[in-house]
Amino acid sequence: MFPIAPELHAAEWLNTAKPLSLQQLRGKVVAIYAFQMLCPGCVSHGIPQAKSIRATFDEKDVAVLGLHSVFEHHAVMNRAALEAFVHEYRIGFPVAIDQPSPHGPIPLTMEEYQLRGTPTLILIDRQGRLRLSHFGRAEDMQVGALIGQLVAEAAPQQAQCDDEACSIR
Amino acid sequence: MFPIAPELHAAEWLNTAKPLSLQQLRGKVVAIYAFQMLCPGCVSHGIPQAKSIRATFDEKDVAVLGLHSVFEHHAVMNRAALEAFVHEYRIGFPVAIDQPSPHGPIPLTMEEYQLRGTPTLILIDRQGRLRLSHFGRAEDMQVGALIGQLVAEAAPQQAQCDDEACSIR
Amino acid sequence: MFPIAPELHAAEWLNTAKPLSLQQLRGKVVAIYAFQMLCPGCVSHGIPQAKSIRATFDEKDVAVLGLHSVFEHHAVMNRAALEAFVHEYRIGFPVAIDQPSPHGPIPLTMEEYQLRGTPTLILIDRQGRLRLSHFGRAEDMQVGALIGQLVAEAAPQQAQCDDEACSIR
Amino acid sequence: MFPIAPELHAAEWLNTAKPLSLQQLRGKVVAIYAFQMLCPGCVSHGIPQAKSIRATFDEKDVAVLGLHSVFEHHAVMNRAALEAFVHEYRIGFPVAIDQPSPHGPIPLTMEEYQLRGTPTLILIDRQGRLRLSHFGRAEDMQVGALIGQLVAEAAPQQAQCDDEACSIR
Repeated sequence: MFPIAPELHAAEWLNTAKPLSLQQLRGKVVAIYAFQMLCPGCVSHGIPQAKSIRATFDEKDVAVLGLHSVFEHHAVMNRAALEAFVHEYRIGFPVAIDQPSPHGPIPLTMEEYQLRGTPTLILIDRQGRLRLSHFGRAEDMQVGALIGQLVAEAAPQQAQCDDEACSIR
Repeated sequence: MFPIAPELHAAEWLNTAKPLSLQQLRGKVVAIYAFQMLCPGCVSHGIPQAKSIRATFDEKDVAVLGLHSVFEHHAVMNRAALEAFVHEYRIGFPVAIDQPSPHGPIPLTMEEYQLRGTPTLILIDRQGRLRLSHFGRAEDMQVGALIGQLVAEAAPQQAQCDDEACSIR
Repeated sequence: MFPIAPELHAAEWLNTAKPLSLQQLRGKVVAIYAFQMLCPGCVSHGIPQAKSIRATFDEKDVAVLGLHSVFEHHAVMNRAALEAFVHEYRIGFPVAIDQPSPHGPIPLTMEEYQLRGTPTLILIDRQGRLRLSHFGRAEDMQVGALIGQLVAEAAPQQAQCDDEACSIR
Repeated sequence: MFPIAPELHAAEWLNTAKPLSLQQLRGKVVAIYAFQMLCPGCVSHGIPQAKSIRATFDEKDVAVLGLHSVFEHHAVMNRAALEAFVHEYRIGFPVAIDQPSPHGPIPLTMEEYQLRGTPTLILIDRQGRLRLSHFGRAEDMQVGALIGQLVAEAAPQQAQCDDEACSIR
């Protein structure tokens, strides 16, 4: 019923020692904020809401990721500028830089997820399924309610297979 | 582990044809806002948050109740004044008037729930158990998250008995 | 060019030892906030703006007055209720209770000033002339700008007469 | 009593066909907002307040200028980035880029005015005198009041001299 969320196409990551994947976050709810550092709505309510999600939920239940999906002013919203932005706005969660496209201004993750713009809040459930893609302002009460319900859903019993065998964790 | 929430002591009700009881709301999450009409914090964020809960959650999952717990200025925060207040502030959910005490300024429900003041948000789960009693300002994100998780909890299978028999619904 | 502001019709006053008159405030800018204690817009921005005017300007330049102009729910917005409201909302400036009309719900000052409702901000210059009557929300920047300009206007040289003589102060 | 405000050291200007000088703005009140595009307090209240000043006062009375005084993250807060910022935040008033110093991170105007940081609101009266240098958040009511009073002050009678003669305008 709900499609599995496709992997992020990240050119680089900030605030994390290693690149992250949705696959390895399976079992947690994942909240992804697609933003641009020069997008007024992202700065005034998207980023504060992302921080509020981070402050409200336990890291073992909910992962919060930023996704810097630049589709305009590419030259000035580069990695160095983003680093200064992340520092000044005290953003502590991992931020992926959406992979630029060789064919046009829309970066790859933004294109695959068919985002309409920034800010967009993407919610993925414990089973890795896409449950929300909301463009524009969302009320804190509604976002809290939705994530709260996703947190309460059971994590999948996953068959985990290695070269030797498969087991239910 | 969680105690059953005691019944409200309501002298009267507004915005409902019949008095309500927690017993009859069993199976739903119940959010109760204890307030006073002349309490600035109640007016600036308690009442708006109660309305936001009402707008966010489905009535079949969450009941929202006001509880007018007057512990000061009793003479002027009477039923007629409360009716004008409820009208002007466009409060659509049922409001109980906390039963005045014959012994002092603290009304009976406020005393039994040991509330510290107004506004206080009380949350009761689908099984009728007291899960939160929060005095003062609460963030929308946190309130949404908590109610969202309570909504996701299973309703109790209740033995319902009438004169003839008992059955599991 | 600007008409002299008519005197207030005050049934009673709060927060002042003696009744006040515009006549005796001549020489100061006078900011009057017409409000009702059960008017949501008055509580959320009118009263805070009145307090901000009081905090911004010097008392020797600007007088701030409340005017409780009740035109609905008369029975519950009485003097005792207003006293509780003034106490809970920490209103420190003088408040006049607009004189009820023997003929209808609109009190006398509200009628003479032809106010459209509450909140209304009335500004009177140092010469006692009516310079603004603004119904509804006004931006702080604009209100500050306007009062600042009125403050900068010269006070009138008044002929002050007593039983003995008249003199220019 | 009040010192004449020193001229701005502008490397470049945005939103104006020609460079501006305080000298040529003499006769108007001048409000200058020193900011950095990656300064959270500048974005959340400094820039909105500057726009509110612009919207409140007449251009013939008050000039509003931005001053991009970069003292950190110099590499990424360059002219191209500022242009994107000015576009996205719909800034319509002229913006001067504070002249970088050959000796350190503090640009020249910031140093001469001894600014403590950004945002700083500088107010200059009709006679070109420095009347306010306020670092950090300022209330709209207070800023409106102060500019309103400066607007009400008389413009100077200036001796204007050309090659032929001097005259009082």
